[in-house]
Amino acid sequence: MNKDVLVKSLYRDSHEFINKQVTVSGWVRTLRSSNAFGFIELNDGSFFKNLQVVLDATKLENFKEIAKLPISSSISVTGTLIETPEAKQPFEIQAEVITIEGMSSSDYPLQKKRHTFEYLRTIAHLRPRSNAFSAVFRVRSVAAYAIHKFFQERNFVYTHTPIITGSDAEGAGEMFKVTTLDLHNVPKTEEGKIDYSNDFFGKESNLTVSGQLNGEAYALAFRNIYTFGPTFRAENSNTARHAAEFWMIEPEISFADLKDDMELAEDMLKYVISYVMNECPEEIEFFNQFIDKGLLERLNHVVNSDFGKVTYTEAVELLQKSDKKFEYPVKWGIDLQTEHERYLTEEIFKRPVFVTDYPKEIKAFYMRLNDDGKTVAAMDCLVPGIGEIIGGSQREERLEALKKRMSELNLHEEDYWWYLELRKYGETPHAGFGLGFERLIMYITGMSNIRDVIPFPRTTGQADF
Amino acid sequence: MNKDVLVKSLYRDSHEFINKQVTVSGWVRTLRSSNAFGFIELNDGSFFKNLQVVLDATKLENFKEIAKLPISSSISVTGTLIETPEAKQPFEIQAEVITIEGMSSSDYPLQKKRHTFEYLRTIAHLRPRSNAFSAVFRVRSVAAYAIHKFFQERNFVYTHTPIITGSDAEGAGEMFKVTTLDLHNVPKTEEGKIDYSNDFFGKESNLTVSGQLNGEAYALAFRNIYTFGPTFRAENSNTARHAAEFWMIEPEISFADLKDDMELAEDMLKYVISYVMNECPEEIEFFNQFIDKGLLERLNHVVNSDFGKVTYTEAVELLQKSDKKFEYPVKWGIDLQTEHERYLTEEIFKRPVFVTDYPKEIKAFYMRLNDDGKTVAAMDCLVPGIGEIIGGSQREERLEALKKRMSELNLHEEDYWWYLELRKYGETPHAGFGLGFERLIMYITGMSNIRDVIPFPRTTGQADF
Repeated sequence: MNKDVLVKSLYRDSHEFINKQVTVSGWVRTLRSSNAFGFIELNDGSFFKNLQVVLDATKLENFKEIAKLPISSSISVTGTLIETPEAKQPFEIQAEVITIEGMSSSDYPLQKKRHTFEYLRTIAHLRPRSNAFSAVFRVRSVAAYAIHKFFQERNFVYTHTPIITGSDAEGAGEMFKVTTLDLHNVPKTEEGKIDYSNDFFGKESNLTVSGQLNGEAYALAFRNIYTFGPTFRAENSNTARHAAEFWMIEPEISFADLKDDMELAEDMLKYVISYVMNECPEEIEFFNQFIDKGLLERLNHVVNSDFGKVTYTEAVELLQKSDKKFEYPVKWGIDLQTEHERYLTEEIFKRPVFVTDYPKEIKAFYMRLNDDGKTVAAMDCLVPGIGEIIGGSQREERLEALKKRMSELNLHEEDYWWYLELRKYGETPHAGFGLGFERLIMYITGMSNIRDVIPFPRTTGQADF
Repeated sequence: MNKDVLVKSLYRDSHEFINKQVTVSGWVRTLRSSNAFGFIELNDGSFFKNLQVVLDATKLENFKEIAKLPISSSISVTGTLIETPEAKQPFEIQAEVITIEGMSSSDYPLQKKRHTFEYLRTIAHLRPRSNAFSAVFRVRSVAAYAIHKFFQERNFVYTHTPIITGSDAEGAGEMFKVTTLDLHNVPKTEEGKIDYSNDFFGKESNLTVSGQLNGEAYALAFRNIYTFGPTFRAENSNTARHAAEFWMIEPEISFADLKDDMELAEDMLKYVISYVMNECPEEIEFFNQFIDKGLLERLNHVVNSDFGKVTYTEAVELLQKSDKKFEYPVKWGIDLQTEHERYLTEEIFKRPVFVTDYPKEIKAFYMRLNDDGKTVAAMDCLVPGIGEIIGGSQREERLEALKKRMSELNLHEEDYWWYLELRKYGETPHAGFGLGFERLIMYITGMSNIRDVIPFPRTTGQADF
C-alpha cells in the first residue's frame, strides 16, 4: 500500500508520470460535483499543492458515493495523469478507481472557510491538515535537516547533551523541577529540608536551560560540535515569542575566537535559509503572499548581505545620535531592547548585524573578558524584522580569570568542578552560540506566534495534546 | 584560527596536502622525545587516528619546552606533511612552528595506561578524549545523521512531539513529574488533593515516554513522519541496558500496513548500519578489534540478509520443539524473553527476524486487532547478539474497535478525545515503530553498557555533569 506515488513526485518529476496510470492516496481537501462530473483537490501531505482528481460518472463505478464524501475523507485513487496546459494546475488525474480508506464526518472542524490561528490551536491534532500549518511544519522539518546537513558536512559532531540536569549551571532562566517524589507527602530531613536522597537521582534535578557547558566539554575533545535538542524555561511570560519548551541549536568550536564564531553563525543562517528556499519554494511563496508580504525580499536580503559588525559601545553611540525616540532610553550599560536592535539592523545598517563586546555585567559568567576589563567577547546577531536571532560568545578559557568572575558572581567552584577542569587539561580558545530553532522558523515563515511553529506547544497553563 | 586543516582531511584527501605546509591544531595524545628528536601523536577529534608530529631540535625553536608538554596539552603545529611509506602511519608532519594553546597538567587523569569504563564514567567530561569514547561518540553523531538522511530522502516530515506531556497516554512506563510547585509546601485542595491549578501548566504534567500518539496525528496529515527526540522512564532498574533518559526514533506511516512497517524497519536498519560502516571504517575496525570480536561479521550479516518473518504462534512452537533448556519456559501467551529472542534469531533463523501477531494481552491498546480476535498486528525485530531492537505495530484505525479495546483496559475516552477524533476524520490504515537510539549505537559499536553510549548518562541515582 505504501508504494503509491507521492504527490510531490508527480509535481517534481511529472515527465515520468504524464499519460501513465498512477495510484495516489491522500485526504480530500475540497470536492465539488454535478450529476455527471466532479473534482477533488487531494492532498497527501508530501507537497504543499493539491492534486486535482477528475470524477466522471461514466467511468467511475462508485461515482455517487465519492461525490458525497465529507471533507478530509481519505481515499486511494488510480487513474491516468493528464497534462492540462489551459488550466491553473499543470495536470490532473482522471480517476478510474477510487477506494475509500476512511470516511470523514460532516462535522469535520476544518471546513473550507478561514479559521483564526487561535481557533486552530485548539485542534492541534488536525491543524497540520490546513494550508498554513502544512506549510509551516514541512518547512520546520526541512530546516531541521538543513541544520544537521550544514554541521555534518563541516565535520561537527552532533552531541546529545542531557535534558535532565543536576545543576542550575548556566543560570539562564527559571527551571522546571523533575522528580519522582510523592507530592502528597514530600519526604523531609530532620532539619526540615526536602530529602532528595529518596528522589530518583538522589538529588534535586531540573530540566536543562542550555546544553552549552556540556557542549564545551565535547568541543574540547572533538574540536567542533553542535547540539540540537529541547530546552526549557519555566518563565511565566505569556507572550507570542516565549514557550516553556523549545528546541535549540548550540554549536561550540575549539581553536576559535569571536570572529570565527560570527563567521560560523553567518554561514549557518545563510545556508539554512537558502536550503529552505530551494527545497520549499511553494511554501515560501504561500507565506509571502498570505502571512507576511515582505518575507521573500527579507530572506533574499539576508542571504545576499555581508552581515555588518559593530561593537556595543559604538552601537550605543549610534543609537544615541539617532533622532529616533525610544521607549527605553539608551545609555552605555543597558541591555539592548528589541526596539534598539531592530533600529540598528533595519534603519542604521539595513542588513543583519553583529553587535559585539557587551558590558560584562549584562552577560553570563563564562564569557571571555576583554583586555579593557569592562566588556566581554560576546556577540548578538540582529536581523531585520525580528532583532536578536543568535547570541554567542568566546568562552573564558583562562582558569584564573574564570574563577575570578565566578567568585564575583558568588558561584561555587565545587558546583563547576568539571567545567573548571576543562581549563586545566588542555584548554584552547573556543567559542559558540545558541540559536532558538522556533525563532528561526518564525523568521523563515513569517509566522508571528511561537505557538504556531511548534506542533503541540507548551506555554504557561497549556500542555494539552 | 578555525581555518586550520582537520586531521580528517589529511587522511581522506592526503594527495592535496603531501609536501605542502599545513597548520593543524589538536591535543597531545602521546609524546616521546630524546635530546634531539621527539614524536607527538596529535588528535583533533575530527578523526579516529592521530597525526604523527616530528620534533627536530635543530628546526624547532621551542623544542625543549614542547618536548616536556604534559599529555592533553593543546597545540597548533605548522609544518610540512611528508609521506612515510616505510612507517605504520601513511604520513607525518615535520614541525616548523608549534604554538602552545593550553598547557595540560601532569595529573591529567587519562594517562596512557588502560582505564576501566567504570572509571571513565566518573570523568565523563574527559572520556571523549580516549580512543574508545572518541570512536563511540563520533559514530553516534554519524548514525544520528544517517537516520535523518534516510527519512528525509524518503520525504518523511521530521516532527518534534512534546517532551512535557499532560497525560500518561501510552502507559508505556513510569514517568517523571515536571513541576514548578514549591516542594516545601505543596498546595492542596480542600479535599486534600494536590492543587495543580497553581502549577505551571495548571495540571499534572510528566516527561514523555513516547511521541507515538502525537506522531499519529501528524502522519494523518503528512502521510509519512518520524520523530527523533529524548524520552524518559523513571524505572528503578539498574541494568546495563536501561537509562532514565534516552533518545528514540518513531516513524509513523499512513496508507500502510504491518508489511510496509517491517519493510521500512528493515530498510532503515540496513541503511544506517551501511552508512556508518562507510563513513567510520576506522572506528568500526577498532570496535571489532578491541570491543567485540564478532562485530564486523555481525554487521555485514545484517546488511546482507533478507530478514526472516515468523508469527508469534509459530515462534512459540519452534521454541517448544527445540532442545534448548530455557530459564523461562515457553508457552503461548508469555512475553518472549531475551533468551528466547536470541535463540530465535541466532540459532533458528541465523539472521534478523520479525516476530509478528502477538497475543493482544501483552501488547498496547492501540495495536490493530487481527481477525482471529486474539492477536494484534504487532511486530518485533530481533537481531543476533541483542534480541529485540525495534518494536512496532499497525495501529487500530477502526474507531469502534479502538473504543472497545480501551474500555476493556479501563482507559477513559475523554483522556484520548483527540486521538479518537483521528479515527473519525479520515482515518487510514497506518503503522509505525520505535527504535531506541542507544540500543542501536550499542549494536553498531559492540559497547555493552548503555552508560557508555550516552555522553552524560542519567540513570537511577546518577545525574552528575
